[in-house]
Amino acid sequence: MKKLINDPKDVVPESVTGFVAAHGDLVRAEFDPIFIVRADAPVAGKVAIVSGGGSGHEPLHAGFVGYGMLDGAVPGPVFTSPTPDPILAATKAVDGGAGVLHIVKNYTGDVLNFETAADLAAAEGIEVRSVITDDDVAVKDSLYTAGRRGVAGTVLVEKIAGAAAQRGDDLDAVTAVATKVNAQVRTMGVALTACTVPHAGEPSFDIADDEIEIGIGIHGEPGRERIKLEPADSIVDRIIEPILDDLPFKSGDDVLLLINGMGGTPLIELYIAYKHAAEVIEERGMHITRSLVGNFTTSLEMQGFSLSVLKLDDELTELWDAPVQTAALRWGR
Amino acid sequence: MKKLINDPKDVVPESVTGFVAAHGDLVRAEFDPIFIVRADAPVAGKVAIVSGGGSGHEPLHAGFVGYGMLDGAVPGPVFTSPTPDPILAATKAVDGGAGVLHIVKNYTGDVLNFETAADLAAAEGIEVRSVITDDDVAVKDSLYTAGRRGVAGTVLVEKIAGAAAQRGDDLDAVTAVATKVNAQVRTMGVALTACTVPHAGEPSFDIADDEIEIGIGIHGEPGRERIKLEPADSIVDRIIEPILDDLPFKSGDDVLLLINGMGGTPLIELYIAYKHAAEVIEERGMHITRSLVGNFTTSLEMQGFSLSVLKLDDELTELWDAPVQTAALRWGR
Repeated sequence: MKKLINDPKDVVPESVTGFVAAHGDLVRAEFDPIFIVRADAPVAGKVAIVSGGGSGHEPLHAGFVGYGMLDGAVPGPVFTSPTPDPILAATKAVDGGAGVLHIVKNYTGDVLNFETAADLAAAEGIEVRSVITDDDVAVKDSLYTAGRRGVAGTVLVEKIAGAAAQRGDDLDAVTAVATKVNAQVRTMGVALTACTVPHAGEPSFDIADDEIEIGIGIHGEPGRERIKLEPADSIVDRIIEPILDDLPFKSGDDVLLLINGMGGTPLIELYIAYKHAAEVIEERGMHITRSLVGNFTTSLEMQGFSLSVLKLDDELTELWDAPVQTAALRWGR
Repeated sequence: MKKLINDPKDVVPESVTGFVAAHGDLVRAEFDPIFIVRADAPVAGKVAIVSGGGSGHEPLHAGFVGYGMLDGAVPGPVFTSPTPDPILAATKAVDGGAGVLHIVKNYTGDVLNFETAADLAAAEGIEVRSVITDDDVAVKDSLYTAGRRGVAGTVLVEKIAGAAAQRGDDLDAVTAVATKVNAQVRTMGVALTACTVPHAGEPSFDIADDEIEIGIGIHGEPGRERIKLEPADSIVDRIIEPILDDLPFKSGDDVLLLINGMGGTPLIELYIAYKHAAEVIEERGMHITRSLVGNFTTSLEMQGFSLSVLKLDDELTELWDAPVQTAALRWGR
C-alpha cells in the first residue's frame, strides 16, 4: 500500500483538519464527534441540508459545504457509515429553525444511521426530512445496499436542493426538488483498477491487468460484468445505453452530462469519455445544456469513471446555475 | 497499460474535442494546428496571454483559459512540446492589439518553440514578451531542462498575470507581475508511482513498491533522491524545507500554499499533506492567507503531489482574488 498518509487511523481527522485549514473562509469543523458545517452556520430561517457517509469519496461531501449547497457534512471512517451521533450533532449545528433535509446515498448503514439521527433530532424538536439517492442503474441490491446504490448523481441533488434552500424555499419545497433530481438522474460507473482502504492495507478487490469492471460501485462493489479492456468509446457505449434506456430519456430533452472521475483517472481521459458520451446523447436527439467534468464522487485512488445524465427543465437549470461557493464547486457571487 | 483512451495517437485531439464540448461557454478550439482560446478572443485592447506545453498535465493549460486568466493554450503531444506553428496561430488568434505575453515552463523544447513563434509573430507586427517559469527547487538542470524546471507554480503565475491583463494593465505591467510571481514562488514534488505516456505504453520510470522519488519532475524526470516510503508528515518535511530555505521566506510573510495533486492521488491525501505543511509554515511565523488544493499541474495518472509556496503582498493578493472564469479555476463574477 503506497499512500500519502500517517497512521491509517488518523486519515479522516487529519484530512478534515487540513480541509478546514485550507477553506476556513467557507467551513469549520467539530472533531468530537466529527462533522463539517458552513462557516456561517446556522443560517437563521433557511432550510439546512446535511449529507454524509463513509470517507474516501472526496470531495463528496465536505467539499460541497458552503453557500448554495450543503450546510453540513458528516464523514465516517473510510468506506464506513458515520454513526448517528455526529449526524445528530451536525443536524443540530445547522438547524436555523426552518427544518433540516438529510440527503443520504442508498447504503444500508447510511440509511439506518441517518434515520436514527433524524428520529433523535425530531425528539429535540427539529423537523427533519430525508431524501435517499439511488441513481446507479448498474445493479439492484448490492454488497451494502438494498435496491439501487446512490452514487455520483448525489452531487447534482445536493447542488440543486442547496440552491433551492439558499433562495428561501421551505422544507417541503426543498425536499420535493431533491426528490425530483434523484428521480431524473441516472448513473453508471466503470473501474479500471481497484482501490485500497488505508486501514485494510489491501486492494478492495482483485482485477487483472487487462480487465475492467462494468457497473462498479463506489466502494468497489461488484458491477454487472468483468470484461477485457476496450477502447474508451466502447466502454462509454456500454454504460450510457443502460442509463439512457432506464429513465427513459427522449429526443428533445435537455440534459446535464456529468463525467465523474473515480480519483485516479487523469482529466485528459475524462474528456475523451465526455466527447463520445456527448456524441451519443446528441445522436439520440437530446441537448446537453449543462456539463460537469472532474473528480466529484471518488473511490480513493481507483482508476475509472462514472457517467451521469440528469434530465433538466427550466427550474432545475435555474437552480443549477445559481451561485455556489464551496471548496469543490464554485461559481457566481 | 490501462487507460481510458481510444487510439493513443488520438488522445490529445479527442480530449480537446471533449474539453471544448463541455466548456463551450468559456472556450473554443482550432484543430489544424491545435490550440484553445477564450470564447470571446481576441479581446480588443487587452493584453493577451498564451501558455502551452506538452499534454498530460491537465487541467494545465487549457483548463485555465477564460476570463481573468489565459487567452490561449497550446497543447503539444503528451509530454512533448508543441511546435512553433500552433503557438504562432494561437498568438495571432488572441492578439487584441495590446501585445501578447507567453508564459512558458522552463523546458528546452518549450522555450525554443515559443521563442521561434514569438519571432514569427513579431515579424507579423505583434508585440510578444515571454516569461519563463522555473519554480522547481528540486534540481538544477534535468532531463529536458537547463536550469530549474517550471512546474505547478506556473498556475499561480497564470492566474495573477491573467488578472492583471483583465483589469487593463499594459504589456510591460503584465510581464512585470508575471516575472514577480515566478520570482516569489517555489515548488517541490514527490512521486509515489510512475505514469505511462499513451504512445509509449510503458511507465516512464521504474519505482519499487516501497519507494518514492523526492523532487520528481512533472514528466517523471529524476529528482533528488529515491527513498523508502515514509509517513506523509515526513515527506512534507523533506520537500517544504528546501522550498522555505530557497527564497528565503521569513517570519511575518503572507503566503499562498498550493498542494497540487499529480493526477492519481486522492484528495483525502492531499489535505493530509496540507495539514502538516500549514503547521510547518505557521511554526516559521508565516501566515497562510490564501490556499489552493487539488489537481492543477498533473503528470497523467502519477500518484504524488507537489507543494508550492508563493510570497504574497497586497497587489498579488488582490490579483489572486480577482474574478476568474475557467474550466478549472472559477470564482467571483
